[in-house]
Amino acid sequence: MPDRPALRADARRNLEKLKAAALEVFQERGLSAPLEDVAQRAGVSIGTLYNRFASRQELVDAVVPDLATTKLGQAIRRAQEQTSPWRRFAVYVEEMCALQAADPALNDIIARSYQDSTELTAICQNSVIVGSQLLVEAQADGSLRPDLTADDLFMVFWLNAHLTRTTSAAAPDAWRRQIALLLDGLRADAATPLPVGPETVATALPVMLAGGRSRAR
Amino acid sequence: MPDRPALRADARRNLEKLKAAALEVFQERGLSAPLEDVAQRAGVSIGTLYNRFASRQELVDAVVPDLATTKLGQAIRRAQEQTSPWRRFAVYVEEMCALQAADPALNDIIARSYQDSTELTAICQNSVIVGSQLLVEAQADGSLRPDLTADDLFMVFWLNAHLTRTTSAAAPDAWRRQIALLLDGLRADAATPLPVGPETVATALPVMLAGGRSRAR
Repeated sequence: MPDRPALRADARRNLEKLKAAALEVFQERGLSAPLEDVAQRAGVSIGTLYNRFASRQELVDAVVPDLATTKLGQAIRRAQEQTSPWRRFAVYVEEMCALQAADPALNDIIARSYQDSTELTAICQNSVIVGSQLLVEAQADGSLRPDLTADDLFMVFWLNAHLTRTTSAAAPDAWRRQIALLLDGLRADAATPLPVGPETVATALPVMLAGGRSRAR
Repeated sequence: MPDRPALRADARRNLEKLKAAALEVFQERGLSAPLEDVAQRAGVSIGTLYNRFASRQELVDAVVPDLATTKLGQAIRRAQEQTSPWRRFAVYVEEMCALQAADPALNDIIARSYQDSTELTAICQNSVIVGSQLLVEAQADGSLRPDLTADDLFMVFWLNAHLTRTTSAAAPDAWRRQIALLLDGLRADAATPLPVGPETVATALPVMLAGGRSRAR
């Protein structure tokens, strides 16, 4: 049976081509990109793709967690290296927003638009925990306004997802202005009383998550 | 010919029913709402609707400008009644955002998502001119940060359009927190240097307008 090893090698090549193509397409178009585009980029049929990965979730789990762990980890380290609690908090916000602008796949993770992957959800959750710690430390330090909640922070990332999805190709730095204006309003010495309590944002969260959720297969 | 006056009365009634239904549907679902819903609400066929209004634009122009003139006019007056330049500017922002949250038709106008009506564009433009005046006056007064542009302000309304479209049914006040945080960052004494210039937002404007544009017929 001289064909066997050749076939296996061929299958291995297809698998690697599929994974490389998936990562490229997800990073270009987000985690809801059509899987047909992945198959086409890899030069295989959609049948071959589904033969290898039974679902979008399996394909996402095969290629995105490494990227997410690396990129979110780098961003968190850059934030933690800052010398003051305010700078650690502000750089965390800026770094997350910069990842959103640079990479649609990471944008979907940070804005929680893609919720089908347990592994990605855990990676995202880890980043949220770090962000919440930096938030609490900057509040304890007296530099961050005391009425800000982790939900308010998620609202920032959720809005930045919309902003960067729309503008990052044409105007890759437009988000930087809006986020900088907002950060200036988060300093404790800029704070005036907020008109409504944090429960208003907590109530909005489920529809924000549902609205941003991938509707693709 | 005893039918003639009855027919004309019937046609008049249909016209009034169509206009009332259109205003309701646009205020519930925005200016891109399906015209089939308008016909159904009025109890007429879609053919009768198109017999009366050749296009969405004609129907929008027949019912929305009065609403827009009244509501935007009231909002602008409430802003202009404030006793300080900062309050006039801040109340203008809050009032526009409140209209966006309360009324999807006005949201489409304020965020310039619907650009097919010359009359609505003029009404919106008038409000933008007032907003720009209030911005300049609050900057001259030293209360508003001097680096803010009218494009930055439009960015706020454009983001608030997305926020209110998604959350206003479930959490009608969620936007108030985000806008209040942002307004605190717009005060001159809160300002730190912005990382990128106003041209970044000016470059983003065309895609923001195109992205928010109605894709419905």
